[in-house]
Amino acid sequence: MARIGIIGSAGRMGGALREAVAAAGHEVSGGVDKGGNVANLADNSDALVDFSAPAALKDNLYAAVGAGIPILIGTTGLDESHHAAIESASGAIPVLQTGNTSLGVTLLAHLVKEAAARLGPDWDIEVLEMHHRMKVDAPSGTALLLGEAAAEARGIDLAANTESGRDGHTGARASGAIGFAALRGGTVAGDHSVIFAGEQERITLSHSAENRLIFANGAVRGATWLIDREAKRYTMRDVLGLA
Amino acid sequence: MARIGIIGSAGRMGGALREAVAAAGHEVSGGVDKGGNVANLADNSDALVDFSAPAALKDNLYAAVGAGIPILIGTTGLDESHHAAIESASGAIPVLQTGNTSLGVTLLAHLVKEAAARLGPDWDIEVLEMHHRMKVDAPSGTALLLGEAAAEARGIDLAANTESGRDGHTGARASGAIGFAALRGGTVAGDHSVIFAGEQERITLSHSAENRLIFANGAVRGATWLIDREAKRYTMRDVLGLA
Amino acid sequence: MARIGIIGSAGRMGGALREAVAAAGHEVSGGVDKGGNVANLADNSDALVDFSAPAALKDNLYAAVGAGIPILIGTTGLDESHHAAIESASGAIPVLQTGNTSLGVTLLAHLVKEAAARLGPDWDIEVLEMHHRMKVDAPSGTALLLGEAAAEARGIDLAANTESGRDGHTGARASGAIGFAALRGGTVAGDHSVIFAGEQERITLSHSAENRLIFANGAVRGATWLIDREAKRYTMRDVLGLA
Amino acid sequence: MARIGIIGSAGRMGGALREAVAAAGHEVSGGVDKGGNVANLADNSDALVDFSAPAALKDNLYAAVGAGIPILIGTTGLDESHHAAIESASGAIPVLQTGNTSLGVTLLAHLVKEAAARLGPDWDIEVLEMHHRMKVDAPSGTALLLGEAAAEARGIDLAANTESGRDGHTGARASGAIGFAALRGGTVAGDHSVIFAGEQERITLSHSAENRLIFANGAVRGATWLIDREAKRYTMRDVLGLA
Repeated sequence: MARIGIIGSAGRMGGALREAVAAAGHEVSGGVDKGGNVANLADNSDALVDFSAPAALKDNLYAAVGAGIPILIGTTGLDESHHAAIESASGAIPVLQTGNTSLGVTLLAHLVKEAAARLGPDWDIEVLEMHHRMKVDAPSGTALLLGEAAAEARGIDLAANTESGRDGHTGARASGAIGFAALRGGTVAGDHSVIFAGEQERITLSHSAENRLIFANGAVRGATWLIDREAKRYTMRDVLGLA
Repeated sequence: MARIGIIGSAGRMGGALREAVAAAGHEVSGGVDKGGNVANLADNSDALVDFSAPAALKDNLYAAVGAGIPILIGTTGLDESHHAAIESASGAIPVLQTGNTSLGVTLLAHLVKEAAARLGPDWDIEVLEMHHRMKVDAPSGTALLLGEAAAEARGIDLAANTESGRDGHTGARASGAIGFAALRGGTVAGDHSVIFAGEQERITLSHSAENRLIFANGAVRGATWLIDREAKRYTMRDVLGLA
Repeated sequence: MARIGIIGSAGRMGGALREAVAAAGHEVSGGVDKGGNVANLADNSDALVDFSAPAALKDNLYAAVGAGIPILIGTTGLDESHHAAIESASGAIPVLQTGNTSLGVTLLAHLVKEAAARLGPDWDIEVLEMHHRMKVDAPSGTALLLGEAAAEARGIDLAANTESGRDGHTGARASGAIGFAALRGGTVAGDHSVIFAGEQERITLSHSAENRLIFANGAVRGATWLIDREAKRYTMRDVLGLA
Repeated sequence: MARIGIIGSAGRMGGALREAVAAAGHEVSGGVDKGGNVANLADNSDALVDFSAPAALKDNLYAAVGAGIPILIGTTGLDESHHAAIESASGAIPVLQTGNTSLGVTLLAHLVKEAAARLGPDWDIEVLEMHHRMKVDAPSGTALLLGEAAAEARGIDLAANTESGRDGHTGARASGAIGFAALRGGTVAGDHSVIFAGEQERITLSHSAENRLIFANGAVRGATWLIDREAKRYTMRDVLGLA
């Protein structure tokens, strides 16, 4: 049983993390929010999970290094200076930073890479996603992450080969393009499919999230996996043994 | 066993129609193409199927009226004058004109109408379609036909409520919108889904065509259904008893 | 705003009902469990929702009749004597008894009936369902309800035409059969699909529940719909205007 | 351009192979059927494709060895003695024997293996397949091949862990089981899905065949890939670089 400290404990993700820690048979050592004493939290924890804000990141890393414990960072909106701080901290402790803590999506991206590398360019690649009606941007970050995995495997630049949001007279599909389509409606937590469409056959690789708890579960699994690892920067792919 | 005359017999659809007539246990009485003697064909047929060109439509109707036999018209790109000619002919013979002869799609549109009428406006409606890589426009005509069925049931104007091809910062979904998304790739003959996304639940109504033969089969079923009907203008919905 | 009384308030469904009542902008007038004073609850409510146990049913009906308010019954495992009591009470108050309060499933069954009635016997009907790993029986009650809707529309006896759980050398599909297949795994709340497979085309009608809250939402909508209706026995199909 | 000789040229697969050879820009050097002169065909070919019968296998291998050209064997129903003959021939020429020549299915099996190896035993594995109404056995051979890939990755015995064709009171899902479900209807050429169902999320890996031509295309790709390889026994996984 590990003691997990939650940074950003008051938000929606904080609540999900408490549930996930308990469900995994671990213990919440405590939680802090803006202005809280993170150094104290670190001293009483085996690992930290940070879903707070970029402004707090350096203090959080500092506390983890001070206590000599690992930290998993799910905070988004990081810039160069944050990444530099992460690199620096990872010389002293294990650090895992990621934009998507779901194990399912992490594996899906790996499978997409495999498939895109093996199937020739005559297999057209399409990425489809559906999210709830309140989502304000398209394609989703996860759809782009999946498209990026495919583009990388094919050795092409994603931005230069994207066909997103077809509408009107589009002309025939560009050779080598990666297409994106977005559905919005209801309360859908997040469905993603990558379709490889070849001559007379299709391969479809999909992930469906029933609710947002899976991101908390993945974060907890990642944080506990970090305990007793060597000091280094990790990704969710390491947690699944995919890197 | 009925004798079916095929107008536009040399094209891809003409070949599929020959197959479909035989599969349904009927007989091809003959075929004509541009410049052929359609009056003679009509005299030796129990019904005509016309997948030729708008320019030939009036001659074809004239031949059917002369022989006193029904005609099914799948030709696309018709204008007002063609529709007037159809109306006029339908005073003398049974005429069925349609943009989609598939029985499955005809039924799907009916079910979409039912569902849209019964489910409140808090159920978001999305139309998804996938077609082969050579298709040059989006959404497909059939997707629009399905969206139209939903809009009609809700008493709203489709054009004014369409969200098609989401890409970039779109903002939250507009209340009452009907969304469209298009996938392109491989050799897909045509998949269509209408999704009703409500609070914590989804209803999805889908049609999948394995190949283009279904349009020929639907045309043959429509043409034979017309035989011995009273003189009138019909739609595919009448063939299924849905009108 | 209506005052909804919850019978069976301590269970998992009771909690979901409280959430659903609030979400719909209504008020929970109170809740009772085994041994509680249901007559008092009825006096302070505009409608009752009963997800308790068959043994309590007659007392619950009696309290509703006494207060002159409607009752929605979602309790399962009822026998002939319970149905007789429901019939009797429905002479004095509106009563709705159902095995599935989801509006989505209610509509799906209606659409399945429509489709089965319109499509000839050359369209094979298959019912597929997926539920969480703890479910102990197959096919699900809802799958059977959907199969029953299809059988009714075709004028056939479901039990005599069922092909469920194919395994081994089954022989070719029996003409007119309705097939069932069950998937089990994870935490799936409930997915159902009815597939109509014809010559070269397929129509699929599906429902997917994100979680069990939808049954509570449907019950609340049903209960409020009953208020001020005439005394009669209703079904969920009446709520959707499908009967 | 390669010259491909077809053994078993009169059957349904023979016709598809002719189409596939032409579509790939190669040439059919000739075809033989029962009693034909396969030695002569081999002398005029760069590779042989054999979809004939087990009884002809040894003669076919002998002809290929005599001409020093590779052979792809898609014939099913082989016994130990046939496999011994294949082993022996593969000392002299490249030989590829397989039960499924589709590249898509070959890749899908590889992805299933990857996923099953990475996801813990708390992810339940289900295999779903749909085929046309004439298919007489369940699950399909391809479904079993996919289940075998999953079982191998998990280090379990498939037969001892199979839950196929659930019907009636089945009890909760057995821990570690691999489930199979079979749908039958219409003219479906072959759809397969492997579902990994975890806590609140699902990964689904699917393959859909539009028609049987894909098996011919895969065979032609395999046969041409064999040309100029070293003498050895290969599988379809080698063709995709997966072995």
